[in-house]
Formats: sequence, structure tokens, C-alpha cells
Amino acid sequence: MYTKRIFPIAGVLKWTRRHILLFIVLAFIPVFLFDVLGLKWLHVPWLPLGVLGTAVAFIVSFKNNASYDRLWEARKIWGGIVNASRSWTIMVKDFINNDHTDKDRTEEEIQAIKRELVHRHVAWLTALRYQMREERPWEMHLKSKRSNIEFRASKYRVCEDVEDLEGAIKSYISEAEYKEVLAKGNQASQLLGIQSRRLKELMNLGLIEDFRHMEMTNMLVEFYTLQGKSERIKNFPYPRQFATLNYLFVWIFILLIPYGIMEEFESFGEKILGLLSKHEERSSLMHVTQEAIAKHFVWFSVPFSALITWVFYTMEAIGE
Amino acid sequence: MYTKRIFPIAGVLKWTRRHILLFIVLAFIPVFLFDVLGLKWLHVPWLPLGVLGTAVAFIVSFKNNASYDRLWEARKIWGGIVNASRSWTIMVKDFINNDHTDKDRTEEEIQAIKRELVHRHVAWLTALRYQMREERPWEMHLKSKRSNIEFRASKYRVCEDVEDLEGAIKSYISEAEYKEVLAKGNQASQLLGIQSRRLKELMNLGLIEDFRHMEMTNMLVEFYTLQGKSERIKNFPYPRQFATLNYLFVWIFILLIPYGIMEEFESFGEKILGLLSKHEERSSLMHVTQEAIAKHFVWFSVPFSALITWVFYTMEAIGE
Amino acid sequence: MYTKRIFPIAGVLKWTRRHILLFIVLAFIPVFLFDVLGLKWLHVPWLPLGVLGTAVAFIVSFKNNASYDRLWEARKIWGGIVNASRSWTIMVKDFINNDHTDKDRTEEEIQAIKRELVHRHVAWLTALRYQMREERPWEMHLKSKRSNIEFRASKYRVCEDVEDLEGAIKSYISEAEYKEVLAKGNQASQLLGIQSRRLKELMNLGLIEDFRHMEMTNMLVEFYTLQGKSERIKNFPYPRQFATLNYLFVWIFILLIPYGIMEEFESFGEKILGLLSKHEERSSLMHVTQEAIAKHFVWFSVPFSALITWVFYTMEAIGE
Amino acid sequence: MYTKRIFPIAGVLKWTRRHILLFIVLAFIPVFLFDVLGLKWLHVPWLPLGVLGTAVAFIVSFKNNASYDRLWEARKIWGGIVNASRSWTIMVKDFINNDHTDKDRTEEEIQAIKRELVHRHVAWLTALRYQMREERPWEMHLKSKRSNIEFRASKYRVCEDVEDLEGAIKSYISEAEYKEVLAKGNQASQLLGIQSRRLKELMNLGLIEDFRHMEMTNMLVEFYTLQGKSERIKNFPYPRQFATLNYLFVWIFILLIPYGIMEEFESFGEKILGLLSKHEERSSLMHVTQEAIAKHFVWFSVPFSALITWVFYTMEAIGE
Amino acid sequence: MYTKRIFPIAGVLKWTRRHILLFIVLAFIPVFLFDVLGLKWLHVPWLPLGVLGTAVAFIVSFKNNASYDRLWEARKIWGGIVNASRSWTIMVKDFINNDHTDKDRTEEEIQAIKRELVHRHVAWLTALRYQMREERPWEMHLKSKRSNIEFRASKYRVCEDVEDLEGAIKSYISEAEYKEVLAKGNQASQLLGIQSRRLKELMNLGLIEDFRHMEMTNMLVEFYTLQGKSERIKNFPYPRQFATLNYLFVWIFILLIPYGIMEEFESFGEKILGLLSKHEERSSLMHVTQEAIAKHFVWFSVPFSALITWVFYTMEAIGE
Repeated sequence: MYTKRIFPIAGVLKWTRRHILLFIVLAFIPVFLFDVLGLKWLHVPWLPLGVLGTAVAFIVSFKNNASYDRLWEARKIWGGIVNASRSWTIMVKDFINNDHTDKDRTEEEIQAIKRELVHRHVAWLTALRYQMREERPWEMHLKSKRSNIEFRASKYRVCEDVEDLEGAIKSYISEAEYKEVLAKGNQASQLLGIQSRRLKELMNLGLIEDFRHMEMTNMLVEFYTLQGKSERIKNFPYPRQFATLNYLFVWIFILLIPYGIMEEFESFGEKILGLLSKHEERSSLMHVTQEAIAKHFVWFSVPFSALITWVFYTMEAIGE
Repeated sequence: MYTKRIFPIAGVLKWTRRHILLFIVLAFIPVFLFDVLGLKWLHVPWLPLGVLGTAVAFIVSFKNNASYDRLWEARKIWGGIVNASRSWTIMVKDFINNDHTDKDRTEEEIQAIKRELVHRHVAWLTALRYQMREERPWEMHLKSKRSNIEFRASKYRVCEDVEDLEGAIKSYISEAEYKEVLAKGNQASQLLGIQSRRLKELMNLGLIEDFRHMEMTNMLVEFYTLQGKSERIKNFPYPRQFATLNYLFVWIFILLIPYGIMEEFESFGEKILGLLSKHEERSSLMHVTQEAIAKHFVWFSVPFSALITWVFYTMEAIGE
Repeated sequence: MYTKRIFPIAGVLKWTRRHILLFIVLAFIPVFLFDVLGLKWLHVPWLPLGVLGTAVAFIVSFKNNASYDRLWEARKIWGGIVNASRSWTIMVKDFINNDHTDKDRTEEEIQAIKRELVHRHVAWLTALRYQMREERPWEMHLKSKRSNIEFRASKYRVCEDVEDLEGAIKSYISEAEYKEVLAKGNQASQLLGIQSRRLKELMNLGLIEDFRHMEMTNMLVEFYTLQGKSERIKNFPYPRQFATLNYLFVWIFILLIPYGIMEEFESFGEKILGLLSKHEERSSLMHVTQEAIAKHFVWFSVPFSALITWVFYTMEAIGE
Repeated sequence: MYTKRIFPIAGVLKWTRRHILLFIVLAFIPVFLFDVLGLKWLHVPWLPLGVLGTAVAFIVSFKNNASYDRLWEARKIWGGIVNASRSWTIMVKDFINNDHTDKDRTEEEIQAIKRELVHRHVAWLTALRYQMREERPWEMHLKSKRSNIEFRASKYRVCEDVEDLEGAIKSYISEAEYKEVLAKGNQASQLLGIQSRRLKELMNLGLIEDFRHMEMTNMLVEFYTLQGKSERIKNFPYPRQFATLNYLFVWIFILLIPYGIMEEFESFGEKILGLLSKHEERSSLMHVTQEAIAKHFVWFSVPFSALITWVFYTMEAIGE
Repeated sequence: MYTKRIFPIAGVLKWTRRHILLFIVLAFIPVFLFDVLGLKWLHVPWLPLGVLGTAVAFIVSFKNNASYDRLWEARKIWGGIVNASRSWTIMVKDFINNDHTDKDRTEEEIQAIKRELVHRHVAWLTALRYQMREERPWEMHLKSKRSNIEFRASKYRVCEDVEDLEGAIKSYISEAEYKEVLAKGNQASQLLGIQSRRLKELMNLGLIEDFRHMEMTNMLVEFYTLQGKSERIKNFPYPRQFATLNYLFVWIFILLIPYGIMEEFESFGEKILGLLSKHEERSSLMHVTQEAIAKHFVWFSVPFSALITWVFYTMEAIGE
């Protein structure tokens, strides 16, 4: 998580520099055709474009809303995992003891059991973390797009890219368990299954009292629920049909904008020319310069169009 | 679930090609009447149309919101079923044993009981899955519309269309249960009822401890709840009065758009003609061409109208 | 619940035909005053009206949102009642037995007790259903408005209008209970109270085990909660101050629209006249016709205004 | 709660009559300066005002949304109190008995204990009700504003204004408890504390079974939660910084509206004058009248501005 | 929490006075360049700016929505802490006694234990409070910005700035616990850990009954959850990429507004000049003054632009 108040603006510009260039080119095309090649009929009326713009703003804002909600829900789930892990630690510490055993264990044995349960929980956390870092088809673009690769390279070091899951969890569980866990599909689920089996054994040995065993099993059910929720967020992206159409609508709007904006600037150029012809008491040089500007006023639409298209594009892109 | 980042645009165009054609025809009509038949009075003012467009954007975005929420809730319920099924498996594995029996069962017998409970659970999942695939009157259009049939045929193979429920669950439950389940209405409910009865028997035999029996019954209550929620999502579509009126409003807007947009292009044509008459220093051929374009500039409204109407139509259609 | 994909459009038109007529009359008035009586100053500028329209679209969409949420919540509650009822049935079936009785009951006696508990539950469902059908002052318009009466008469047969509560629940409970229930205010609450008392007796007789009695009491608490939620939805309409002002705002907008739209059409008429005077090479008859249309072009605002006002009115009305 | 379908419109007008007057005056000022004193330069362009209007509509609708959510949540909490109270009554009725006592109490003694617990609960409800009626600084305006005082005086009789808390709860609790409760700060909390102490005593006497005591304590925890939620809604108004700025923004918009709208009407006046000069075949009197109207057409902006400002003001005010 | 109905407007103006000045300067620049230096071509068309404004209004309102939801959730969590603390107090008061002890404690000893548990809870509340007051990088601006420092200095006295955590909790816990708690990272978690250990001891001594011990442990789990939720809200700000882009978009809009608005006023100036030239029957002085105003009418755009930019800036700023 980036933690400054806002990203430095230079960074944002650098990150989107390829698109900025593209938008300048897109804005340049109609002006070139109009003013240099003389295609005076090249116009799109602004008003219907405005309604389209409002509709696009609606759906983009709706998408950003949905994507913020997903982010917030993901954060809640992770917070829930933190809370449940703390509670698990308390339970392990206070519920395992010699109170109901036939044959008392030494303090060291008890400590070893507690350590084992906590370590296996860390292994579960690790497995879940790796699972969340796996790539999905709809995330491809996040990694493969050049701008992102550069950005990540310069800023982050994702530890999941450096060490693999096998190495990361090996130290937390026994050799036998390690083999059992890696043999089948979902490692995190396997680990919770082992925890459950182990709790059962401990209860049979009298190290956990009957009701407290049920409490701890309930905590495992809670872990399953949290894991399932994480997987749901991970595996169910913003519905693709919505995403595709949003993407199309924004690009349709972006492609039309320069033509609509050029028209507005062109009318302005006309008006300024009219103004200038009336106020002829101005100094000659000034007047000539201004007239030249007015005649080619339409060129000012290039940066303006690029700015507007950039805003709409970026608005759509952050929600992804 | 489609899993690429976005659908290929060609696919989207192909999927909506019938409507694209329709919108081109709709946009063609007023232009033909105006420019060919000379009905110069054929206009609709854009401004009130713009307000109508904003209102339509509101209600469509509201509907899409609701339909996204339904999708998300459905995904949550299915995620809940996955989580609860995992927990059920743990419970079956760890709660059924000889600890409280009068007469111990062999390991094989215990395994058989566990397998039976898990298999019956799979049968429930299957029955629920089939129930979710049944057709409802308001979904008819999804299957019967030609564009969808083609699209599905080329992309998916829905296993529920190939094998029927009877075959699918037969292997998971005994012959007697199979008859009992198919005799009455809601198969999934029947299966949970049998699970509950069986748990009762197992407790009486001492194979499940008293409190753990209550925990497992609570899990069955949870399954009922999840099934009920699935049925609710399935059987309660977006309220039909909202859907009907949205549909009407969007079509009213779509039918009026070409007339409004034509008017904007017509004004433009006038203006360009004016411009051209002033800048007469242009090459003759160029000038004549441009004048011809300006006179029939209104024809450019056809693709533009078709585009806008397509955007609004598609926006409405994806939320269905 | 209506179950086709969309209502037939003819039905919608028939249902709103009185209002359509009203809107045509409202749209006719300004045009008549302007074009026949010659009150040429009769105009309202469109732009401020447009902002008003956006604001109205906001609040109407906000209200529809709220009313959809209420509908959805109501559906959830009813789904909850279904789920809880199924769970109740399981519990009755599996929790009542001779396991802890001093003196065993025959199978018939057990069955009779089970039937009694389920029947009383059906009586509760019935009482709740009738309670939900009672009329509230803010719903009056739903029944008394002529268009609704007709619509309902031709489509639905509401069984609560045909048989009264007394007859409907009599067959499910004993004579004594029937008197007790009808003696006091809230019948549904009375019935749950009797269920609770009966469960207590059954536990004292040993027919329900101690903890399972608590589970079943919890289910009764759940029924109270669901009943309370139903009553809340029923008795707490969309706040009347919001509803009143929405209603006022929409009508203010509706009354102003024809004047604003007429103005737009009037400008158009002017413009067309201008166009016609230039292109005089047209055939004489065509020209004369078009000139006549252009002069009275303002009449075209009548259907257009009626359409727009109908859309805004209906948008407001469906959320009620 | 007001229960008719909509408030009578006359009542709404009466309730806001002071503001209607104010808005007419505000709309009158620019017209007077413009048309009587001849300050022809007094204009504000409408288009930027329109964007401001959209932004204002956004934030007002956002605030109304939040305030509706608060209202709905408050209603849910109160519904929760009703449900919990009903459940409390059942528990008191069925959980208190001689089943586990060493020495049986008479039926009268048991009834007295039940009555005492229910009466103390009513005292808690009463204390909570009074607490909710206390005034907060940000509610001052509700009572002190003249229009509200009159409105309330004519319509409601708030019983909390008539009798004080002391009198209202005295009859429900014993003299000793009455003193204890009033000695310290939060009366409602005190009462729940006494309930808890009393349940403890009853369990020690064997009048409540061990587990059912825990269930009843859980219900007290539920009451604490519901009380805490009520206090939260009561004590945490819509954040004051939002409220202040909304208020400012709406008033800025309201103050600018008449200048913007006057401009639109002024252009219209011009246009009508132009029209009239062309169509001179009209009857003389009619023509003269219309010309006079057209010249002072700007005066029509007064009612129109007042209407629009009233709509925006009222929209902001109802959410408070 | 500020508790008047609205902040005094003077205070709001004072608080934002630096920005008001900045916006006046920003609005002054284009007018100066246009009217004094004669750069007549300096314009930005309003219509595309309007669409940008709508989009900005969307995202700002979306952000404010999210930030209000965070505030409300924070308030709910704090309310939950209050409720849970009250319930904790009841439990401590009623669950700790001599009922199951081998050797009875004196009333003073019991009271000491109760006081200890409540004091340690107060220490936890204190530690959590201090934790919430720590600074985060994205909050820096709240404290370091001069306008805020002044504002806070004159209004509030934050007790966490005056006394440090060590002093604040020392009096509530024993010397040994004090050292243990400060030795490791998260003080609040440490304190809950000690509570759990202590409850365990008290149960072993028989001072808390077995099931009531589990209830109290559940309450500690609840405290962990509430603490975790507080930390989540604290440590997870509104996503920085959204915040950065909102900030950029609003500033882009703010920088463009004066140019767009100047254009609108400039057209007005033209129009008024036209009007004045027609109505020449006016008194000479009046006429000359008005003509001078009309020529430099563009200057009126300075306060108007400043006002609009201030509204949009403030709207964005309050959501932070």
C-alpha cells in the first residue's frame, strides 16, 4: 500500500505517459485534417456527445464504486483474518492444559503442542497469501503491460515473486504434513483439515476440554469462511460483460471527443476574428499576431482534447 | 464465466449485429425523409431530448446497479455453499466415531457412513444446481433469442442440458432414497430432510455425540438457508414493472435520437456552407466536393445516431 | 408476481391511459393559447428547466432506489420465513420423541403432537399473511384509484379479499386456542406465545430434550424477529415528507415542460420558414404544404410534451 | 408519523410560506434593479450556473440519501426493540418457575416476580424514550423555528413535553430502585443493571435454570446494544462540516439563480419583440398589449425564480 | 465533535481564506491577460468544460460518499466498544462470586478482583485511544497545514497531545503488567492477552463458573474484533490512487474554469453593448457608466469564477 497523502504528480504523468502521447495524437488528427488538408466539413455536434459523456460518467462512476466496494470488502476480510488469528492465539494459549488429562504432560510438551498449532496457522496464512498472488487471465494485463512492469520494478519487491510457496511453508510444518499438503489441490484447505484432525486428537488426550474443543472447531470454520471469501474476491472479477462494454463506451467517447471539441474551438476562432475586425485601433503587430492565432485557433483544441480524453481514460482505468 | 480480460470486440459486434443493423435503419429513415423526400420540417429539438437522456441514463444505471448487486449476492451465496460444504466435510470426518457407542463399529463401517453423508451432500448440491438451471418465463428470451442460441452453441456446453437430474444424482444415493426424493416436489429439500433423519439415527446409535449432533443440525439449517437464498435470487427477478418501463423509456429515447441528432447535423451543414461561401480561394475541385458534402452533411448523422442508440441499447441490455 | 419478461406494452398504455389523456390536454393548452389565441409571449426558457429536470431525475431515481430496496428487503424477509419454516419442520420431526420421557407415548400420540405444532405454525403464517394485506392510509390510492381496480379485477384474485382470517385459521388450531387468539390484538404474536407455552409443556413431559427445547425456543425468537420485520416494512412507508415533495416537484416539472418544449419547437418553426424561403426551387404544392407545417410547427410539441411528461410521471409513479 | 398518502399541499405551502415570501423578494430584487433602475448589465451567465446546479443536486441528493438511511436504521433499531421486548416477555413467562427451587413459591409469588421483571422493562423503555426526546444543539432549530412551533402546536401533542420522566417511570419500579436509578447519569443503563442483578438473585434462588439464565442475560446484552445504537443515532448527527457546506452551497446557488434566470427571460423578451415587429397584421389592442408584455417580460422571471429556488431549498431542508 | 447546527459561516471563510485568495488570483489572471494585455483569443469553450464538471461532480460525490461511510462505520465501531464495555461491566459484576470456590474469598477480595478487571479494561480503552491518535503519512497534511494548526489551536485541546500513553495507563494496571505491556508492540493487544490469562486463573480458582468463563472469553474476542476494526479504519485510508486522481481532476477543472467563465461574461458584455446602443434615450451619465461597465464586463467573472472554484475545491476537500 502506498502511504503518502497523494502520489507525486510526476509519477502519475510518467505512469500514463504512453497514453498521454496517444491522446495528443488522437487530438491532432482531426485538427490536421481540418486546418492543413482543408476538410472543413469534419465536425461532430457537441450536444449529443455531452449526453453520451454524462452516460459514460455514470457507468464509469458505477464501476469505480463497485471496484472500491470490492477493495473495501477485501480489506475487511483480511482484517477479519488478523482478528481471528489473534483470537486463535489466545485460545491456543489458554485452552490447552493438563486440567482434564489422565496423565499429565510436562510444561515443555505443552509448549511444543502450542507452538505446533500456531506454526501450522502461520503456514495456512502463508499458503493463503501465495494463493492470492497467483495470476488470473483477467489480471494478465496488470503484469504484462510495460508501464506496470517498470513501475513495479522501480518501487516494489514482492516477496512472493522471489521465494516459492514450498520453501515458505516448509519450516512451519513437519515433513509428513508437508508432503500431505503438497500432494493435493488446495494447500490452505489441507492445512485447516490437519488442524481439525489434530484438535480432535488433543481432545481425546484430554488436553482440550470438550466445549473448548467445539469453540476451537468453530474458529476453524471461521477460517474456512474467511479463506472462501478471499477466494471469492480473487476468482470473481468485475463481470466481464460490464467491463468490456465500459471499455468500449469510454473509447467510443474518447475517439469522438476531439471532433466535438475542435468544432467548439473553430466557432471561437470565427468569433475572435469578428471581434478583431471591429477593434482595429490596436497596434499593428499585436493585431496581426492575434489574427494569425484566431485563424488557427482550432489548434488549441489539441491540448484541451488530450486533457479531457486523458481524464476520462484515467477515470476508467483506475477502477480496473 | 468468461475469463479473459475483456471480450474480443469482434465478438461483441457479432453478438449485437442484428441490433446494429436495426439502429442503422432507424437512423436512415429520418435522413431519407428529410434529404430525399424533402420533408424539411422533420425535427426534434435536442435539449429536451438531452434531459430525457439524462433521466434514461439514471434509470439504466440504477438497474445495472441492482443487477450487479444481485449477481454479487448470488456469488456470495454460492461461495457460502462452498464454505459450508467444506465445514460439513470436516465435521463428518471428525465428529463420527466410536467414542460414545455401546458396541463399536469397524473402521469400514464408519468409513461407509461418512461416505454416505458426503455423497448425499453431493446429491443435494447436484439437485440445487439443476434447480438453478430451470427456465423461468422472464428468462425465456435468454434462450430463445437467436443471437444467444448461436453464441451459446459456439462457446459453451452446459452439462445440465446434456444429462438429466435423475441420472446425475442416482449414483450418489441409495435406491430407496432415490425414489423417496423424486416422489415429491423439491428434491433438494427432500435430501436435507433425509440427512437430518440420518443424523438423528446416528446419534441414537451413539456414533455422534449429543452436542456435536446439534452442531451438525445447525449446519443443515445453514444449508436450508443457503438453498432458500438461491431460490430467492432465482425466482425473484428484477421487478417486472421497473424492467418494463426501463425498456419502454430506453426505446422511446432510441426512437427519438435520430431525429434530434439529424437536426444538429443539419445546422452544421448550413454553417459549413456559409464558411465555404466565404473562403472561395480554395481549389475548384476541393471546393465543389466540400460543398456537396456540406449540402448532404445530414447523412453523417446516420452512423453517429446508430452509434449513440447502440450505446444506450447495449447499456440497457447488459443489465438484464 | 407477474412473470412474463415484460408487461405487454398495450397493458401499460391501458393502465396509464387516463394520465396519457391528461398529459395531452396539458400539452395542448399552451399551444392553443399561443397559436390560436395569439399569446406570443407565452414561453418558459428551457435551460433552467433542464437543471430542474436533472434535479427531479435525481430525487425520483433516489426514491425508486429506496423503494426497490424495500421490495428486496421484503422479499428477503419472506424468504427468511420460508427457510425458518422448513427448519421448524425438521426440528418438529426429529426433536420430539420418547427418548427422555418417563412414560412412553404411542406413535399416534407423537404424530398428533407433531401435527399440532406444524398446524399452529401454518396458522401463524396465515395470520401474518392477512396482517400484511390490511390497508394502510398511504396505500388507499392503490385500491381506490379506478385504474388499479380495473387492472386488478381483470388479472388477479386475491384470496384474502374472498375469505376472512377467522375462517382461514380456524381449521389449523383448536377451538380454545381460536378463542384465545381472536380475543386480543395481534393474532400472529398470540399464536407464537401459544407455541412457546406448548413447547414448555412438552419439555416438562420429557418429549423434548432440554437443549433442543432451547434451540426450538430460539426458532420462535427468530419467528418473532421475522414477524417484526414484516410489520416494520408494512407500517413504515417511504417517509411521507419525501414522498409529498417528490410528488410536488415532479408535478411542477410536468406542468412547466409543455411551455419549455413549445418554445423549442417554435424556434424550429422559425428556422424552417427561413430555410424554405431560400430553397424556393421546390414544387409549389410541396412548398405550400411545408410552409403551412412550419407556421404551425408548434403543434408538434403536443405529442412530444405528452411523451416526456408521461415518462417523468411514470418514473415517479412506479416507485410508489 | 404522519399517515396519509401525501401531506395536503396547502399544509406544505403554509409550512414554507415564510421562505416562499423570501424567495419572491430575492427574485424581485434583480428584476427591479434591471427594469426599473435600468441596470442593464446585471446578468449572470446560466451555463456555469447549470453545472453548479448539477453539483448542488448531487450533494443534496447525497445528503438526503444519508438522512433517509439514518431514518431507516433508526426504524430498524426501534423494530429490534419491539421484537426483543416480545421475546423478553415470552422468556419471563416460560423460564421462571419452581422446577429447580429448593423451596417452592406460590403461584402468586411467581406472578409477582414476572410482573416485576416486565414492569422494569417498561420503565427501561420509558427512560429510553425520554432520552431520545432530549434536545441536542443541532436540533435546536427544529423546535425554536417559528414555523415548526406553529406546525407542531396545531398537529401533535408530544406526551414527553407534558409529563416528566420521573412521573412516567415511578409507577413501574419500587421506591428504592427509583432512587437508585435517578441518583446516577444514564437511567436506562441503571435499569438494565438492576435487571441483571435481579436475574442473578433469581437464579441463586433456583427460580431460573442455569442455562436459561445465560439466555436471559444475553437478552440484556441485546438491550444494551439496542440502547447504544439508539444513542448513537441520536448523538451523532449528519457530520456538521458536510451539513454546513451543503447549506452554504445551496444558498449560494439560490442567491445566484434569479440573476441567471432573469437573463434567460430577458433574451426571450427581445425575441418576442422581434417576432411582434414582423407579424404586424394583428389587431391593434392585442398588439400593444403583447408589446408591453414583451418589454417587461423579465418580470415573469420572478415567479419562475421563486419556484426553482423553493424547490432547491426544500430539497435541502427535508433531509435535515 | 462540533455540536452547533452549522459552523458559523465566518469560521468557514476564515478557515479557507488562503484558498479563497488563491482562487481570486487564479480568476484574475485570464481577465488581466484578456482585458489589460489584450489577448483577445484567450478562451476555453464552456460546453466540454460542463461535461468535465459533471464528471468531476460525480467522482467527488462518490468520494464524499465513501468518506461518509467510513466515518459512519468508525462511529458504529466506537458505539460497539461502548456497548461491549457496558456488557463487560455487568458480567464482571454478576459472574464473579464465591458460588463455585473451594475456599471462599472475603467481599473485599472479590471487590478488588472486580476493580482490577474493570481498571485493566479502562487501560485497554486508553491504549486504543492513543493508538487512534498516532499520525499516519497520509494524515500529515491535517496537522502540518497552517490553516488547520491555527484552527485547532483556537478551538480544541486534544488531551492525547498533552499527556503521553505511559502516564495515562500507569494508574490502571500493576507495575509488573505495566512493564510487560510496554515491552512489546501492540499495547492494546497485550492488555487483552493479560485479561484472558487472568480470567483463566479466576476460573481455576472457582471464582468464575465454567460456562460464564466462556461467555467472558467471547467478550474478549469481541474486543479483539472491535480493536481490529478500529485499526483497519485507521490504517486503510481512501485508496491513494483514487485520492490522487480526484485531486488532479478537481484541480484541472479549477484551473480551466476561469477561462471558460470569462468567455461567457465576455459574450454578455458584447450583448449589453448592443442593447445599450439601441436604447439611447437614457440619461447621459447613466448611459456612459453602463457602457463602461459593459466594456469591462469581463471583470465580473473574477468573483464568480472564484466562487465556483471555491465550491468545487471545498466539496473535494471536506471528503478528505
